[in-house]
Amino acid sequence: MTGSQPAPASPLGLHRVLDPAGVLPQAAGRLDTRPEIWPDEVRIGLERLNLDAASFRQLHEAHDGDPDKIRAAVLDIVRTRGKMQNPVTGSGGMLTGTVEEAGPDSSLGLHAGDKIATLVSLSLTPLVITDGLARWDGKSEQVPCSGYAILFGRSIAARLPDDLVAGLALAVMDVCGAPALTHRVVSHAASHAPVVAIIGAAGKSGSLSAAAARAAGAGTIIGVVPHEDEAAILADAVAGDGVHGLVDEVVIADARDPVGVSSAIASAGGPADVTVVCVDVPGCEGGAILATAQGGTVIFFSMATSFTAAALGAEGVAADVTMLVGNGYVPGHAQLAIDLIRTQPGVRGIFQRRTDEHSE
Amino acid sequence: MTGSQPAPASPLGLHRVLDPAGVLPQAAGRLDTRPEIWPDEVRIGLERLNLDAASFRQLHEAHDGDPDKIRAAVLDIVRTRGKMQNPVTGSGGMLTGTVEEAGPDSSLGLHAGDKIATLVSLSLTPLVITDGLARWDGKSEQVPCSGYAILFGRSIAARLPDDLVAGLALAVMDVCGAPALTHRVVSHAASHAPVVAIIGAAGKSGSLSAAAARAAGAGTIIGVVPHEDEAAILADAVAGDGVHGLVDEVVIADARDPVGVSSAIASAGGPADVTVVCVDVPGCEGGAILATAQGGTVIFFSMATSFTAAALGAEGVAADVTMLVGNGYVPGHAQLAIDLIRTQPGVRGIFQRRTDEHSE
Repeated sequence: MTGSQPAPASPLGLHRVLDPAGVLPQAAGRLDTRPEIWPDEVRIGLERLNLDAASFRQLHEAHDGDPDKIRAAVLDIVRTRGKMQNPVTGSGGMLTGTVEEAGPDSSLGLHAGDKIATLVSLSLTPLVITDGLARWDGKSEQVPCSGYAILFGRSIAARLPDDLVAGLALAVMDVCGAPALTHRVVSHAASHAPVVAIIGAAGKSGSLSAAAARAAGAGTIIGVVPHEDEAAILADAVAGDGVHGLVDEVVIADARDPVGVSSAIASAGGPADVTVVCVDVPGCEGGAILATAQGGTVIFFSMATSFTAAALGAEGVAADVTMLVGNGYVPGHAQLAIDLIRTQPGVRGIFQRRTDEHSE
Repeated sequence: MTGSQPAPASPLGLHRVLDPAGVLPQAAGRLDTRPEIWPDEVRIGLERLNLDAASFRQLHEAHDGDPDKIRAAVLDIVRTRGKMQNPVTGSGGMLTGTVEEAGPDSSLGLHAGDKIATLVSLSLTPLVITDGLARWDGKSEQVPCSGYAILFGRSIAARLPDDLVAGLALAVMDVCGAPALTHRVVSHAASHAPVVAIIGAAGKSGSLSAAAARAAGAGTIIGVVPHEDEAAILADAVAGDGVHGLVDEVVIADARDPVGVSSAIASAGGPADVTVVCVDVPGCEGGAILATAQGGTVIFFSMATSFTAAALGAEGVAADVTMLVGNGYVPGHAQLAIDLIRTQPGVRGIFQRRTDEHSE
């Protein structure tokens, strides 16, 4: 460290915010990316960025899928902002790499040489790319690269498990908040063996949430999917005990059609005591609310959720439901998700299919 | 009723949706406003509309405050859509009136002649205005008018209390979801006598929520306000027992400054076990999250809340907090709020000041 440090270390990374003053790193326009670490920081040598899906889609569309332009755009964002935060979507992604140096006051439990994934967003992580993204074809969210990133005192990172390939582990960790919060809510539900509905159950966060609901003591688990293909995938998926399915009932409905989705869930054993929204399309609030029993809980994990649509929608139908903003952080979330992937072949199969679809 | 009814009654009002088919009344472009009621409906003779503040502000600005143009705009919206839903803000408001006719299957417990306020949004309520808004000066959200409105089987309405003037009762009912949910969350908090922070405590929903928190057994109540004037109002407000203040600590901070607001709350006895956000400006998510203890709860009542800012903000600082979308409906909410106004002179004083400020 040098004598030019502008501020004492803050566990939130406030000392790395250059502009505007006083905001959190996520809201910052530009971060200080100096490689020297403060005593509670950790520096990571980059292996791969995993761009947020919404961010990559925006870049892809804005540049007509031209790999050179997309590469240039990402490099420009990182150079200008000191972090990979898409200025249009506001979102970032996550990264994998190897710990280069851990400060003496870091409480993250990491050591030089550890292979890790960061579980805080790239939208607040100081980042420098040194290879011009020469190894990235610009065609998917998975961005192999060289350079470094900085973790703050109050960041979150998880060691990559040895028994899972990096792409699979990264995909699991990307959505690990959903099963963790689902597990907590189902465990604490007022009713014994609650009915759980998962909207978007054949996806990554949805299938993991279904497995977490089972582990937490759910009674009937109802999986909602948009069409026959996904219904077939889900119907074939078996739980880790070899007896149950990953879900008990599979129903096909458009999540944006409130009456359709709530009727489908009602006919499959609903209304649900706990409804989990895992589909990333706007307009799913009403259906989730209507599908949930009075006194029940809706967990919104979709980043396409509208706060006002949820608040006014529940009031509009006199629904006494608890509505949770899906917090991506629950203590132990990465470990819970990794354990589910290890023990639940049904979920693992869905993940392998999904990650293969998007592999290069 | 006539033989031309297009559909059987739905408690959600689906039979009144003309366009597009299949959506809930709130999402509808146009509602059927026929005065004949279905068996579970209630028809209300209008006395006054209370336009949503955001909606009135938009109309006022779009028409340069010209009363004739604002009146014409409201009439046009109601004529075109069959409901008072501002197409820009999406919001509605509420109304007061007198029950004209209650269908034999209605479960709302209303009878002809009852003076009531509706607690569902005007954005989903079939509405006809018959006096051309001749009595409205176009200068405030309070719109005296003649005409009628329809309540569905699953709507919510409350009888107006005889001992409160209509303007005050309406203002109380407009925000009654906030104290009801605050009461529930504080009652069920994991810690005994939890620390409660109210951001925007000198406002209508904030002051009622502070009183509800006290009634629910809060320990220290910290009120956050933006400047000295509001601090003085809040510091003078006494609780109904004549001993406590409405809040225990008053702090001045900008709710949009995460570090400022969380430091202020920490220095006044925080972090909070329960944080209630009652200020209608964007960007308050980070401060509320940082001000809340691990394992605590944030309740967002502001319609300016960003879902993604809340979800990513909590993850970004590894905050294990439960984040609730402020549902405007909790059973018994109107009665709880009216009771607080009756027994808490401190809150009543704040309401009278606020409603006087906006009176015609």
